[in-house]
Amino acid sequence: MAKSQLEFKGYALVDPHNFLDLQVSAIKPKNFTADDVEIAITHCGVCGSDLHTLKQGWGESKLPLIVGHEIIGHAVRVGDNVQDIKVGDRVGVGAAIWSCMSCRQCKEGYENYCPQCLSTYNDEYKDGIVTQGGYATGIRAHQQFVFPIPDAIESKYAASMMCGGLTVFSPLKTNGAGPGKKVGVIGIGGLGHYAVLFARALGAEVYAFTHSKDKMDDAKKLGANHVIDTTNKDFAEPYAGALDIIISTMDATSHLPLKEFLSMLYVHGRFINVGIPDADQPLPTIHAFDLVPNGCYIGGSSVGSKKECMEMLRIAAEKGVKPWIHELPMKDAKKALDAVANNTVRYRYVLTQDLA
Amino acid sequence: MAKSQLEFKGYALVDPHNFLDLQVSAIKPKNFTADDVEIAITHCGVCGSDLHTLKQGWGESKLPLIVGHEIIGHAVRVGDNVQDIKVGDRVGVGAAIWSCMSCRQCKEGYENYCPQCLSTYNDEYKDGIVTQGGYATGIRAHQQFVFPIPDAIESKYAASMMCGGLTVFSPLKTNGAGPGKKVGVIGIGGLGHYAVLFARALGAEVYAFTHSKDKMDDAKKLGANHVIDTTNKDFAEPYAGALDIIISTMDATSHLPLKEFLSMLYVHGRFINVGIPDADQPLPTIHAFDLVPNGCYIGGSSVGSKKECMEMLRIAAEKGVKPWIHELPMKDAKKALDAVANNTVRYRYVLTQDLA
Repeated sequence: MAKSQLEFKGYALVDPHNFLDLQVSAIKPKNFTADDVEIAITHCGVCGSDLHTLKQGWGESKLPLIVGHEIIGHAVRVGDNVQDIKVGDRVGVGAAIWSCMSCRQCKEGYENYCPQCLSTYNDEYKDGIVTQGGYATGIRAHQQFVFPIPDAIESKYAASMMCGGLTVFSPLKTNGAGPGKKVGVIGIGGLGHYAVLFARALGAEVYAFTHSKDKMDDAKKLGANHVIDTTNKDFAEPYAGALDIIISTMDATSHLPLKEFLSMLYVHGRFINVGIPDADQPLPTIHAFDLVPNGCYIGGSSVGSKKECMEMLRIAAEKGVKPWIHELPMKDAKKALDAVANNTVRYRYVLTQDLA
Repeated sequence: MAKSQLEFKGYALVDPHNFLDLQVSAIKPKNFTADDVEIAITHCGVCGSDLHTLKQGWGESKLPLIVGHEIIGHAVRVGDNVQDIKVGDRVGVGAAIWSCMSCRQCKEGYENYCPQCLSTYNDEYKDGIVTQGGYATGIRAHQQFVFPIPDAIESKYAASMMCGGLTVFSPLKTNGAGPGKKVGVIGIGGLGHYAVLFARALGAEVYAFTHSKDKMDDAKKLGANHVIDTTNKDFAEPYAGALDIIISTMDATSHLPLKEFLSMLYVHGRFINVGIPDADQPLPTIHAFDLVPNGCYIGGSSVGSKKECMEMLRIAAEKGVKPWIHELPMKDAKKALDAVANNTVRYRYVLTQDLA
């Protein structure tokens, strides 16, 4: 059994102009509090956010910086206030690591929307300690952001559920995906493949939209009931008014045929964007009229709450949801990041511990 | 009692370059069917849509064209299929006049979202007859778009409820306005003053946003609990995350400080645009990130269903909702349209019959 550490090691960005050249670095963890869980990391998924942050696409990052927020490991130290986790438990951490637990959002179970919520990496605690991610030996996190993993889910599968899975599960659940509902999924990538898997696990009928011919078969294998090639000019027409929810996982939001997708929604249907565009990729301009014919909505979503994560894990365990993953040792993070950058990943890399 | 007519007379646009010079013209009504009600018009509200259409702001209009879709009158002829209306009843017609009654939307009580739904004026029946509005002696409408008016509501008050009232009542109701909810209303005009009235009638706490100093007192008199001057640079900050619903009635949507308003929404809050911008007024560009901090929604709405209209009228009767209106004879439509164009109306003109 791993022990609590005074220092973690991880693969850190040190030169922002050379974002694939991560260097093994030592980092000092946050001060341990009674609400914290310290985790010895065994697995960490590679998320598009990691790449955006390393490439400085979301603005200048702190340095040195360890990314990674799809973390699985074992609890090695547990604060006195912690309710549902004991030393030795297998647990996960996603894209958020701390919130105030006293605002309205936190009190109402929306801690992921706490205005003070801290990201798992590239953020800063009040005492100036920078949050550092999961391409590392360990992490400390507030118990509200540490999720017990059911025995039925292998760590390699659970890892990317912590961000990629939850990011699509939360809006699917919030917007009513379930039996009798028609769910569109735009983009078959890390998030999109999860959206197909979870929409099906929730009992919805799934319409997958892709412009990549080589992903059409994959979408079917993932369980999509219908696969639509968006390179056809009039792809939207047959589905006018048909869909209840659309989950868009497109990164390049400024190229999204947004009006066409909105036209596919039924009355009061929801178009939820969970893509992670760079700062220079706004949504396409729309006119108020584009929202009128079906009284539809365009919405966003921020990962998910602990409550939603536990429900996702329960459903994943019950239905045997298995993401398509490739495992690599952490030292090969570069390979995984390259594959994400070049859109050749099918559909998630999971790094395994090689420093501890 | 007025009788069924073979021809209606009304104040029609004949020269699109001279949109305030309406000429008394004769028009042939649609063929009467078993689902129709013919109405002898006594009142017609003057809606912003009338002005947009007359000014060709929404594209070229048909000619000659009679506008007006806030119609009150008496049923003078009732088709054999009509369920809830008999000759002599006081009834209203709003912005829509016909739908297919066989599509999913119609069957599920969303006839206002029927893809074939016809507007009350400037639209066309399958046989080529142009729909003509309420600045006229009479109109024929499908029973689904004819609303019995409760005795407790005077015709002059009921008129502008048919479009202006219903356009804000429907999204208030759909998005959960009621006790314990905080509703923002942007713009105190025809629609905005109704949004304040109905949000209060539904039991919500109302935050009125205006850039017109002279309307701040009016907003209070209408019942707003809080009135916020949007000319203050940091007007949004004190209300970050506070509102559940925002109803925007702004016409000039391209100048809307949309990001600031989105920042005022609580988790999964709804920003609903019911303004009626010209075609050259898109919504301000936003980034997917603007929807993330609170997982909020931007939505639209199209008037309301008969079911919603009947509920609005019931609540208006119970709570004594009274819009602020000015009455004018129909021949003075120009004065009313001028006041709408110059934003001097406080807050709705209602034209009374002078041709029949």
